[in-house]
Amino acid sequence: MSSRDVSPPGVVSAIPLEGLPELEESDDLALLLHAAAARAGGLRDADVVVVAQKAVSKVEGRVVRLADVEPSARAIELAGPDGDPRQVETILRESVDVVRSRPPLVIAETRHGFVCASAGVDASNTPAEDTVVLLPLDPDASARRLRERLVALAAVDVGVIVSDSFGRAWRQGTTDVALGVAGITPLLDLRGTADARGRELETTQIAVADEIAAAAELVLGKARSVPAAIVRGVDVRGDGSAAELVMPRERDLFR
Amino acid sequence: MSSRDVSPPGVVSAIPLEGLPELEESDDLALLLHAAAARAGGLRDADVVVVAQKAVSKVEGRVVRLADVEPSARAIELAGPDGDPRQVETILRESVDVVRSRPPLVIAETRHGFVCASAGVDASNTPAEDTVVLLPLDPDASARRLRERLVALAAVDVGVIVSDSFGRAWRQGTTDVALGVAGITPLLDLRGTADARGRELETTQIAVADEIAAAAELVLGKARSVPAAIVRGVDVRGDGSAAELVMPRERDLFR
Repeated sequence: MSSRDVSPPGVVSAIPLEGLPELEESDDLALLLHAAAARAGGLRDADVVVVAQKAVSKVEGRVVRLADVEPSARAIELAGPDGDPRQVETILRESVDVVRSRPPLVIAETRHGFVCASAGVDASNTPAEDTVVLLPLDPDASARRLRERLVALAAVDVGVIVSDSFGRAWRQGTTDVALGVAGITPLLDLRGTADARGRELETTQIAVADEIAAAAELVLGKARSVPAAIVRGVDVRGDGSAAELVMPRERDLFR
Repeated sequence: MSSRDVSPPGVVSAIPLEGLPELEESDDLALLLHAAAARAGGLRDADVVVVAQKAVSKVEGRVVRLADVEPSARAIELAGPDGDPRQVETILRESVDVVRSRPPLVIAETRHGFVCASAGVDASNTPAEDTVVLLPLDPDASARRLRERLVALAAVDVGVIVSDSFGRAWRQGTTDVALGVAGITPLLDLRGTADARGRELETTQIAVADEIAAAAELVLGKARSVPAAIVRGVDVRGDGSAAELVMPRERDLFR
């Protein structure tokens, strides 16, 4: 079935981008995504291409060999008896603040302002033994670079989200969220909008980029090799930054 | 286009259920959802019907007239100069704990264990002036009742999620999450699963019910009258409870 049949009006679809190779540093990810999208029927205006952070980090060379890491005393303490102090040292170097810790678990604030487990440092699905993958240095810039190439290759106006799986306070399990965006408005602002009875809406801002990332995760899977998806049917074209999704420190009741 | 065309293999779709009337207490919500689903091409095995909490609460009569509420001293204090003490009193009655407050904002733990703004008490899109809508008493039970009727009416094995828009610590904007589930496994447990290189996955549990709720929100909208959606293409059939999505207090670093 052609992808032309996928999205009748009002329907939102998440379409997996399959058949990408195992990614390595300097791979042309945009070209690989374009080819996978072509196999899925092609990109269209207002599509959002959601790419897992790990795919982006791998092609950007954001990989650390633990053998090269000298752990500090603090890393050894935070790792506890069950953690790897070299991995915790890597987490600390990616962090501006440790929000909570319970060895070997570290919840940290990254340089980007994200609060997440291990500052996003991940030891699964890495390119080689004894390596860890870091978050992209600037996920918005990563998204912008991918978007520019995709727009040029496909000649359509698509958005890009770089996504990752984050845990949440108070709730079990991870959901995917947007770390970087390009060509979209990540936060849908309903302030000033009235409900059916003319009363102003209380839920005034919807983190639509996070919801798009979550919808994409439903087709990404963690163990299969599907690092990206198209989300079609939500027109959120705009010029936002994932920084809009970070709660400003002065408004944050949980830091 | 018939809904048969909506979901090729591997694609996940969120299909809005439109044309429901303004809901009132004792309305037959399952019958209304069934009719709306029939207009959208019908339900199929493994579909998940996501219903906004407010729709469920309205038909269950979970509505409070503020004129009937006598605020306590604590409610008056927490409301501050800008809040409505009667609304805060209603929030306190729905809560087992106030997690954070900054008048008039109250982040509370509900009787169900959910940590959210205003204990889920909402003053927008209510049935009448000066009323607020509460969360269902037992959202899993609400989901089970809806599911039983839908399975009987449509003769297919569908799941049901009762969803609501929750804010998050550290991130701006709301995303929809599952308050109640029936006929599905809300938490996808990957513990013991290995990555491509044989290393056990670190992100071990995915809150798939929350991601399905988020995907549905993309077609629900807040100001339009679309209180429900079908999410098709994720087979999460099972026998779980939304309680699985609540972080046990002893593991919670943020309470």
